Amino acid sequence: MRDFTQDHRWLSINTATVRKSRGVEVPLTDIIQACAARGIRAISPWRDQVAATGLAQVSKLVKQHGLELSGYCRGGMFPAVGADALKAARDDNRRAVDEARELNAKCLVLVVGGLPGALAGKALHKDIALSRSQVSDGIADLLDYAKTANMPLAIEPLHPMYAADRACINTLEQALDICDALDPGKTGALGVAVDVYHVWWDPKLKQQIERAGSQRLMALHVCDWLTPTTDLLNDRGMMGDGVIDIPLIRGWVEAQGFDGYSEVEIFSASNWWQLDCGEVLDTCITRHRSRV
Amino acid sequence: MRDFTQDHRWLSINTATVRKSRGVEVPLTDIIQACAARGIRAISPWRDQVAATGLAQVSKLVKQHGLELSGYCRGGMFPAVGADALKAARDDNRRAVDEARELNAKCLVLVVGGLPGALAGKALHKDIALSRSQVSDGIADLLDYAKTANMPLAIEPLHPMYAADRACINTLEQALDICDALDPGKTGALGVAVDVYHVWWDPKLKQQIERAGSQRLMALHVCDWLTPTTDLLNDRGMMGDGVIDIPLIRGWVEAQGFDGYSEVEIFSASNWWQLDCGEVLDTCITRHRSRV
Repeated sequence: MRDFTQDHRWLSINTATVRKSRGVEVPLTDIIQACAARGIRAISPWRDQVAATGLAQVSKLVKQHGLELSGYCRGGMFPAVGADALKAARDDNRRAVDEARELNAKCLVLVVGGLPGALAGKALHKDIALSRSQVSDGIADLLDYAKTANMPLAIEPLHPMYAADRACINTLEQALDICDALDPGKTGALGVAVDVYHVWWDPKLKQQIERAGSQRLMALHVCDWLTPTTDLLNDRGMMGDGVIDIPLIRGWVEAQGFDGYSEVEIFSASNWWQLDCGEVLDTCITRHRSRV
Repeated sequence: MRDFTQDHRWLSINTATVRKSRGVEVPLTDIIQACAARGIRAISPWRDQVAATGLAQVSKLVKQHGLELSGYCRGGMFPAVGADALKAARDDNRRAVDEARELNAKCLVLVVGGLPGALAGKALHKDIALSRSQVSDGIADLLDYAKTANMPLAIEPLHPMYAADRACINTLEQALDICDALDPGKTGALGVAVDVYHVWWDPKLKQQIERAGSQRLMALHVCDWLTPTTDLLNDRGMMGDGVIDIPLIRGWVEAQGFDGYSEVEIFSASNWWQLDCGEVLDTCITRHRSRV
């Protein structure tokens, strides 16, 4: 297991972590500069942040600062009702692959979607098996496109509390079943993103990380689970402030040969997004060294 | 699959559902009378509610009204730090068995506990594997006692969002692994409580319900998952108001031979606990007929 205590060369910042500074939206250009100024070598930006700045400008800035992208957030949201909506999801995912390619991301992270309409508050149906089938079909289709672009796809199993509205792939086992079905040869074109927040509770976690192996382990996201957790989406904790044994899980992942970035992804409406962006990044660096 | 549309003979009320009426705590005696007055044949009371009224009084009332107990809530909370705390948990669980026996409950429901201290906001350690091991040991010990009292134990896998503070048994598969280890002969002394709220998301749900079979399926709890869900504990929905395909899951359970009560268990601080207890019970009856 790599020693993180001496430097932060393997720290990546998911840009949602500093999406807001003192409650105010931060432009991606400022986030990139703040990361580069601290010797942070990698980021993982969100599409909406990239779109707000402009893809060409972000691409230029990333190259200028020599930043790597540990991932690109995100493709997915495959389930839909009706051919038009399904095609719109398919087209949008292809654009996400193109953007990830332009930014030279390690992988496109897939948050696969749940029940259509649920995220807006009103599910159009309750057939989660149908959604799961549409997810498999959607990934299969996108995989062909992503292979031609040489852009790996990383399925991110989301915590079961997001099964309805964000992702109906909820365990690493389930994600790996899809990988095995669509990419039996483990070509490196399809794998998983392991976010400790989503999977820490899973009694089969170690077993499934071993099953994944280095070919399937494409990203490692870290943050912490707070007790109590006051919001299902935006109350993630800084590493060390919660109950997740992060070094244990990182050890399992690295034992498989994973040697990529440890990406900090924290959504925190009432705490970290209320602090100064620079202070949050400094804390990420400190905790990366001591608690990851 | 039984037809629920014509009557509510298979409806049970978990008394937490009407714990409060218009925001005010309701004595268990009132809940029992309100249920009996509506022809509801079964309840599942919580220990704190029983203690507040007095076990003897509750026992008398239950007999007087001819009520059955679809379960008794709850034993568990096994993990602890230190021999004294472990023994206290063990002793308390034996008292729970005694109470369940006095009330002639179908089973004692086990919410097994998570990381010690987490429910109070400060986990004493992060070793969920240790907690899981203590849970197995605790159930094994309690099982001997429960067998002499002829009181079946029903492990309730809780949603993974409660892994830290309430239960580190989070899937039906995991619960059944414990059942198979401790009661390989499927004697009827150890099984599971299936609460749709906790398990609806599980891609292996049907498979594991089939694995459980009638010997292990001891209780079926119903409510609904709302989108959005605004609180991790107390924002459960009334059947039909959320995304869970309850009849589908009930069908799977009944296909195994389960012929017990469908127990409504709703924690709802800002909605159902703010309404009148009688109105909530009437809605439970209506929805039991139409949406379960």
